Amino acid sequence: MRNIKLTLEYDGTKFVGWQTQANGRSVQEEITKVLQQVLQEKVTLNGAGRTDSGVHARGQVANFLTTSLLDLSSIKNALNGMLPDEVCIHVAEEVHESFHARFDARSRTYRYCISLNPVAIGRQYCWFVKYSLNVSAMQDVADSIGGDHDFESFCNYAAEVNHCRCKVEKSEWTARPGGLVYEVKANRFLHGMVRALVGTMVDIGRGHTPAADFPTILAARDRTKAGMAAPAQGLCLEEVIY
Amino acid sequence: MRNIKLTLEYDGTKFVGWQTQANGRSVQEEITKVLQQVLQEKVTLNGAGRTDSGVHARGQVANFLTTSLLDLSSIKNALNGMLPDEVCIHVAEEVHESFHARFDARSRTYRYCISLNPVAIGRQYCWFVKYSLNVSAMQDVADSIGGDHDFESFCNYAAEVNHCRCKVEKSEWTARPGGLVYEVKANRFLHGMVRALVGTMVDIGRGHTPAADFPTILAARDRTKAGMAAPAQGLCLEEVIY
Repeated sequence: MRNIKLTLEYDGTKFVGWQTQANGRSVQEEITKVLQQVLQEKVTLNGAGRTDSGVHARGQVANFLTTSLLDLSSIKNALNGMLPDEVCIHVAEEVHESFHARFDARSRTYRYCISLNPVAIGRQYCWFVKYSLNVSAMQDVADSIGGDHDFESFCNYAAEVNHCRCKVEKSEWTARPGGLVYEVKANRFLHGMVRALVGTMVDIGRGHTPAADFPTILAARDRTKAGMAAPAQGLCLEEVIY
Repeated sequence: MRNIKLTLEYDGTKFVGWQTQANGRSVQEEITKVLQQVLQEKVTLNGAGRTDSGVHARGQVANFLTTSLLDLSSIKNALNGMLPDEVCIHVAEEVHESFHARFDARSRTYRYCISLNPVAIGRQYCWFVKYSLNVSAMQDVADSIGGDHDFESFCNYAAEVNHCRCKVEKSEWTARPGGLVYEVKANRFLHGMVRALVGTMVDIGRGHTPAADFPTILAARDRTKAGMAAPAQGLCLEEVIY
């Protein structure tokens, strides 16, 4: 069996998310369907991260096993020719048969984009925040989650995982023309974690929640103590490292 | 009568263009409809540039006369609240009663975005060109149109205008990560001009048309001598100066 690793981009606007679900079109399902047509065999596609409905990816990684002898560039070109234009495959490469896109990932990087002005062009890729934000207070909070912490307060379904500890390698707000970008890199992310963190930091940035409350929120290990989830469309899975 | 000038942005993907037409939803019509509801009177909206179907604008300008006494921020906020999210008003200001968004414009600036990689996120805002391009040859052509020239070879409906002369103040290709941007500023633009110029320069950049042919194409004053129009979605009206 050959093991093929795909690096791919998608616009999540009209998908129910990465993972195949009964209630709509998923990225995993679209790619699997096309792969099966191309390879003429049943395929199981493992994704590195299960992005939610409306979340985008510039560097999602997935892998599948195949008995097909079709060369890599033909696989890539056939996929790009047959997939909807909201999905494109950037790289198809052969990897060791033991490689698993999800379990072998050492880190994932997400970016969250905020626009501080109303926006029409690219509105599908950012959250318009109408409040003025204290970015320095938001960066202090972002700094405080660096390292190893329990993020149960920022996890939607804590019961689904063994533990909520994540090692955060990077957590940084950067000013962009007309907006802000939050970049966060960690060994793993919990369900809804980045959006809950961004929602909470925006609450702090606009003065709705005192910055001094953040350590208490984090320590509470209780999702109801953190802020609302920031909208899905601002979030993008940028890179997965192995 | 008050004369109100609007500066606005729109995502042209699902519009038939700026100008009201029988065959579908136009930006002019959407804004006029909402303005009439807000102001409770008939309104004529003049736009600075008639962008085509699928073309975007970050800095379109329009004006209208009104007897309404509603303050400017209420007009702007009511429009933004009632318009579809593909359109947003950035500025509403009162101007001299003689101001006309179209006839008073001294220059307009357009940008055309090319992606050199397949792209899913933001595919609505660029043209994916799969050929490798000789950017230096394209810049030579771009340089050669600076100044005052007759652009009939790049005009779709020359019979509709008195003459095809335009003064080009800026004409420049810039490399961006994964792509190229062409910025062109002129006192006026003819119908289809930027897209025909970009299509022709890409033909030259990919080696399909010799760069040495460009002066002949320009001098021909014949649209059939120039290249195909580049796709609408890469084009954006950036700024109008008065």
